[in-house]
Amino acid sequence: MPRSITLLSDFGLQDSYVGILKGAIAQINPAIQVIDLTHDISPQDIAAARFNLMNAYPYFPAGTVHVAIVDPGVGSARRAIAVELSDGFLVAPDNGVLSGVLQQFGDRVQAAVELTNPTYWRVANPSLTFHGRDIFAPVAAHLASGAKFLELGDSIEIASLTMLPIAQFTEVGQSLTGCIQHIDRFGNLITNIPGAAIQGDNWSIAIDQQVLPGQKTYADRAVGELVALVGSHQWIEIAVNCGSAQDQLKQAIGNCIEVTRYSPRF
Amino acid sequence: MPRSITLLSDFGLQDSYVGILKGAIAQINPAIQVIDLTHDISPQDIAAARFNLMNAYPYFPAGTVHVAIVDPGVGSARRAIAVELSDGFLVAPDNGVLSGVLQQFGDRVQAAVELTNPTYWRVANPSLTFHGRDIFAPVAAHLASGAKFLELGDSIEIASLTMLPIAQFTEVGQSLTGCIQHIDRFGNLITNIPGAAIQGDNWSIAIDQQVLPGQKTYADRAVGELVALVGSHQWIEIAVNCGSAQDQLKQAIGNCIEVTRYSPRF
Amino acid sequence: MPRSITLLSDFGLQDSYVGILKGAIAQINPAIQVIDLTHDISPQDIAAARFNLMNAYPYFPAGTVHVAIVDPGVGSARRAIAVELSDGFLVAPDNGVLSGVLQQFGDRVQAAVELTNPTYWRVANPSLTFHGRDIFAPVAAHLASGAKFLELGDSIEIASLTMLPIAQFTEVGQSLTGCIQHIDRFGNLITNIPGAAIQGDNWSIAIDQQVLPGQKTYADRAVGELVALVGSHQWIEIAVNCGSAQDQLKQAIGNCIEVTRYSPRF
Repeated sequence: MPRSITLLSDFGLQDSYVGILKGAIAQINPAIQVIDLTHDISPQDIAAARFNLMNAYPYFPAGTVHVAIVDPGVGSARRAIAVELSDGFLVAPDNGVLSGVLQQFGDRVQAAVELTNPTYWRVANPSLTFHGRDIFAPVAAHLASGAKFLELGDSIEIASLTMLPIAQFTEVGQSLTGCIQHIDRFGNLITNIPGAAIQGDNWSIAIDQQVLPGQKTYADRAVGELVALVGSHQWIEIAVNCGSAQDQLKQAIGNCIEVTRYSPRF
Repeated sequence: MPRSITLLSDFGLQDSYVGILKGAIAQINPAIQVIDLTHDISPQDIAAARFNLMNAYPYFPAGTVHVAIVDPGVGSARRAIAVELSDGFLVAPDNGVLSGVLQQFGDRVQAAVELTNPTYWRVANPSLTFHGRDIFAPVAAHLASGAKFLELGDSIEIASLTMLPIAQFTEVGQSLTGCIQHIDRFGNLITNIPGAAIQGDNWSIAIDQQVLPGQKTYADRAVGELVALVGSHQWIEIAVNCGSAQDQLKQAIGNCIEVTRYSPRF
Repeated sequence: MPRSITLLSDFGLQDSYVGILKGAIAQINPAIQVIDLTHDISPQDIAAARFNLMNAYPYFPAGTVHVAIVDPGVGSARRAIAVELSDGFLVAPDNGVLSGVLQQFGDRVQAAVELTNPTYWRVANPSLTFHGRDIFAPVAAHLASGAKFLELGDSIEIASLTMLPIAQFTEVGQSLTGCIQHIDRFGNLITNIPGAAIQGDNWSIAIDQQVLPGQKTYADRAVGELVALVGSHQWIEIAVNCGSAQDQLKQAIGNCIEVTRYSPRF
């Protein structure tokens, strides 16, 4: 049984681009299982792609091949790359889309290559505007079918991979200053402060001139009320029980939030 | 070959939540086929989830495991449950999302359990905000792989399952009074009166001060005209041939409609 | 291993119609791999369905069964048909949705049938409003499982299949006059002039009182600037590097464009 492939892109679902990616995979090996992460990344939004791939990566079987195609530089000099980790593979343009996985799971990274070997492309003369179909999906299909990683192209330094400059939270005493890094479908405001930073503590979060105490789950507050908690992806988030925090607070990605710890950490 | 799993949720497709559900299933058994019913249920809209699951249930192979995750009470005291029918399984929060299937196919229901056995969860200490990933999807994957139903947790009374109070139509002589229970993507207004109630009869439907005679299919009326018929899901509906009844009539779910039978039933 | 099936429709994803199609397929053969092309065709937009199916067809394995259900005439006298090509099958209403594939790959067409044999339907008495569930998907599942093409129903003349009257571009000397035939998710304006018409030439395109020189890829122009090129689907298109041409030019399908070749062709 071949490895599975996940697909993440900004292609949307109203055209047949995503279907074509899957066709290109099936042409190489129709037994591969393909799982969509999301295709509704805003066009060219590398940061959102980075966030979604990073959060999904740990929930897939070892050996899964993750393809991320948000590629404003397609056809330019940006590299097409693959990365081998101890428990999976990444295939993408080298533009930062992989940098969340590379940061969170950096100790698992083993090797990286530039996809220079046309043996694993769909055609030797790929389209200059759709590397997804002609390079990324075919390479992933070959990887999932057992191709040797180092044959995909020239080895490159892991340190040379493009990292996205994402705002990091800062910590001064018991005060953590961060920002909103993602707003999801439910209107949950997801910050860049990991739950690990307040583990075992009482805490509160300040946003938009309000202070919310840290809770465990949505239902800890009445329906329609704001609630702060550590989300399922392990980031501190602000939600509304059975509602949308974004509808109430009208925030933007990058907006500042402040977390305060009340008890000392041991 | 394992059983298939269907997924229905209000997660939407712009984040990677649905992909993560599929990853959690693949981590347990990558050979399981997963079919999406829909993930575009409005956030926390249990009634719409109930409607869609009920209509889809009979069109799947015997033994299919249906997972429905619209779960405003996640992390609270609401039970996580599974139900065994003679021709399938249901896995969901106990909040009414299953009540359409339980009403329509009640004679097939055989047993119910609360999902209290952590052996079948992804982790023993599940997230308080994403039971889909940590409990529902893993339980479904184990069921699809052959786990024994009664080992999933403590048996519970079928009569104890949460039923959604859905408006029932009323019948006085040849007059049936009901309401709109769903408006679909085509703008079809789907009532809560089953086609069986007018089977073999001539009939008409009154809505918004108009009376429409019952027809067989959309093309029985000219393009752009309102048409009343029994839809493919066996509910009486109001449509527009090549158009949207909702655009013409601007109705809301719950709005009243009246059906009149013209010939006596034998 | 059975053949794969692709699905294209105007059903959208907010209801469970697409899930039900897949259930109807799985009831016949759960081992079939089903790939979505798109379900976000605008309701009843046969031309957009034709365009998307035509562009996706060549990227699937030989033998794939393509189902296209945009069917405003469901339940009327329009025929339900299947077409056999040397490298695939088509299953659809006979309303022009297949005419793009039939035009582009006409030399591969081998036979056509009307789907008159109820042996291959889901039920002998199909719904008059959902042939997708009761006829098209079941027929495709049987075809994918090895049913003999000519047993699906009565043979019909290939010349009798409904062709959509799509505007063709005209050529006078070095001047090609065409129109916009599709606007995709990225706001790319895709014309009806194939790249083959300017192969090897220098060229420019005139639209909305601007003249753009032909380029190779998006990144040949600065971010935010209009760029004309031959798209991955081999049609001439107008795009914006990291942006939306549609946002800048506010065009409509059918709007006129003019291409000029600068060097003689050999």
